[in-house]
Amino acid sequence: MFECSLERMKDKINTMSKFGDAGHGGITRYSLSSEAIMARNEFIKRMVAIGAVIEIDDVADIYATLPGSDPTAKRIVMASHIDSVKNGGNYDGILGVMTAMEALETVAEQKIPHKHPLTAMVWTNEEGSLYPPAMMCSGIVCYDYLPEDIRSKFKYEDMMESKSIMDQSKTFGQALEKSGFKGNKEFRLNPEKYLYMFETHIEQGPILEDNGNDIGVVDCVLGMFNYRVRFYGQTTHAGTFPMPKRKDAFFAAASALCYLHEEIDKLGVNELVYTTGEVVCHPCVHTCVPDYFDFSFDSRHEDPAVLERVLNIVKSCADKEWSGCRCEVVKAWNRDTVYWDKKLVSYVKEAAQEAGIKHQYIHSGAGHDAQFASYMIPTTMIFAQSKDGLSHCEPEYSKPEHCTECATVMLNAVLKADGE
Amino acid sequence: MFECSLERMKDKINTMSKFGDAGHGGITRYSLSSEAIMARNEFIKRMVAIGAVIEIDDVADIYATLPGSDPTAKRIVMASHIDSVKNGGNYDGILGVMTAMEALETVAEQKIPHKHPLTAMVWTNEEGSLYPPAMMCSGIVCYDYLPEDIRSKFKYEDMMESKSIMDQSKTFGQALEKSGFKGNKEFRLNPEKYLYMFETHIEQGPILEDNGNDIGVVDCVLGMFNYRVRFYGQTTHAGTFPMPKRKDAFFAAASALCYLHEEIDKLGVNELVYTTGEVVCHPCVHTCVPDYFDFSFDSRHEDPAVLERVLNIVKSCADKEWSGCRCEVVKAWNRDTVYWDKKLVSYVKEAAQEAGIKHQYIHSGAGHDAQFASYMIPTTMIFAQSKDGLSHCEPEYSKPEHCTECATVMLNAVLKADGE
Repeated sequence: MFECSLERMKDKINTMSKFGDAGHGGITRYSLSSEAIMARNEFIKRMVAIGAVIEIDDVADIYATLPGSDPTAKRIVMASHIDSVKNGGNYDGILGVMTAMEALETVAEQKIPHKHPLTAMVWTNEEGSLYPPAMMCSGIVCYDYLPEDIRSKFKYEDMMESKSIMDQSKTFGQALEKSGFKGNKEFRLNPEKYLYMFETHIEQGPILEDNGNDIGVVDCVLGMFNYRVRFYGQTTHAGTFPMPKRKDAFFAAASALCYLHEEIDKLGVNELVYTTGEVVCHPCVHTCVPDYFDFSFDSRHEDPAVLERVLNIVKSCADKEWSGCRCEVVKAWNRDTVYWDKKLVSYVKEAAQEAGIKHQYIHSGAGHDAQFASYMIPTTMIFAQSKDGLSHCEPEYSKPEHCTECATVMLNAVLKADGE
Repeated sequence: MFECSLERMKDKINTMSKFGDAGHGGITRYSLSSEAIMARNEFIKRMVAIGAVIEIDDVADIYATLPGSDPTAKRIVMASHIDSVKNGGNYDGILGVMTAMEALETVAEQKIPHKHPLTAMVWTNEEGSLYPPAMMCSGIVCYDYLPEDIRSKFKYEDMMESKSIMDQSKTFGQALEKSGFKGNKEFRLNPEKYLYMFETHIEQGPILEDNGNDIGVVDCVLGMFNYRVRFYGQTTHAGTFPMPKRKDAFFAAASALCYLHEEIDKLGVNELVYTTGEVVCHPCVHTCVPDYFDFSFDSRHEDPAVLERVLNIVKSCADKEWSGCRCEVVKAWNRDTVYWDKKLVSYVKEAAQEAGIKHQYIHSGAGHDAQFASYMIPTTMIFAQSKDGLSHCEPEYSKPEHCTECATVMLNAVLKADGE
């Protein structure tokens, strides 16, 4: 059992938190922005300092590798991302990079013998905050291995043309060229050269904290569906149009949302989550009755039968008229539950047990690059406790002790895999 | 009884509808845009052709005046606006200008004797669609006569700094300078030079059509209040945060909106309208539970006691927690019911009767420049039937016959006032 360094982890957290500091404890660090490039350079600087070899692929993913004792052995990679959402926190993504760095630094410092080359990796543009979609570069790199319906969203050519949400005249491809981080395609993660992938991440939920556990042994990424629920009414003037004749799309949507909560809650299913986070209102003027309103409907659960029942309730909205408005339910996308590699999950579990760290099995509700990688090579994940379950916001926090424990568990799980 | 020309009115409607044609039967004609300037030039061209004198004040309001037989008599003005909302119709505002033009054209063609000078007038920026607020230039021109709480929103200096909603680097003041329509302050509408004001407008509601009446004799502009109802929750991740612990501001707002409809409808008040047309959602991302949601709440009725009861219901939202979210109810503005000048209303009523035009008394639910003018000089309004009650949208329509009847009624009412 090897142990990572709390002091070194704290130093990394402090340093990385400066790159994109948004002024309220968190960061805004869009992929390939100058702030992200500062974080990339810091990663490279520290990895070069321990003797790692740096490779960069054609979508700016960075690979820092310590050679192993067997020159023919495949690499074991620990990977996550350094980009954030707008006004995000100091842990989502970057923790997985910092724990990978910490694991390699511990290997280098303690001269831990290992057969396989060990790689710390940075995925480009996981959040897709500036250039959608999320998980863009794992989508590109794992393209050939993804199911057809997912793959179709990640065509290299389309991704290069992805437009900045801030400035539609700028594309991801242009940002990539300008970044100085466009490397060689041959360096991409691939199953010929890489054996396993590990990703550490913050939980982004309150379950570990509520249960008094420091880390989570992740067993799967939950299946999910994402739909749009749309309402079509009629714009009329706020002051001149009698109430009984109105077709108010916002009121229609509000009524339907209350109905959805009521019906879905009746199912009484544990661990089901559903979210209506994004809305569109037209014309969105205080003197006009809205003629269009839609909201996103995202639902996640391990069991596809549960998701099916929820989806049927959502679809039933389209069978009714809501305050005179027509309703349409349209699929955006869905995914099946992705289970991590059972052997790697057991290595993580054993490593946590041997280190005496409080842990539990947990599902991942969020998507991660590891999920796409898992179609290509055996993959697993480790979660750190999130304070109050907050994420994608500046108060996001994980204790440095838990961050270090994650690095320790990941390192020891990697060494178990190395010793097979 | 003098009659206006249907053919001439049709010609004006066809011509004006080209300036800003948005491609689906309606127009986008922001104030001082090149499209609005084409409409202004058309107004001036036609008024010069009948011998009217053109004056332009310092906020680009245009006054076209036919002299009367008494050089010492004050002017009677017929006024409305030529700007539109985005994707608006061919009648809101411009109809009042076209009926004023038509009235003067009829006076000139038929050489109708009149004592007072008669003025057709264009107000600048009534909609405030590009440069808020609405009714900007009547607010500026009538400033000294407005109640303090309204006046404070129309300071000349503030209005000049009003930023374009499309390009925050452009101000109304800059657009005014660039337009070539910035004239002299001395030409502003004022009670020393003007005796009465008339404004023709489309109803923007379905009441006249439902009752089979062509025109409305407007008696007042309804009192109203405009509030914001705000909900404060907590952003969490869509996939990772258990339902019972969520504080979803959108769901909170939807529940409150359903409550408001239920409680207000219980009042059973006739002719009450209330509208929740504008929403703000934050962060408005499909993977995040919203931590903030607000909607506008606009309610209108003639009786202040009714508005008071409605407002109390709206305010009661803040006494409760909605799905764990705090609610705040904040006043944006309100106005009392503004009654038109009783004598002028009776002139309109008599003129309609004498012309044998089907008419009825009606309230105005919408605000108009006439409302601000009425604080300065006696004022009244005439409504044309609106097809399906639609307005502020491209299908907005009033029959040319009804438009011409409005011109006829306005002209004869003006001549009654002229003959006092």
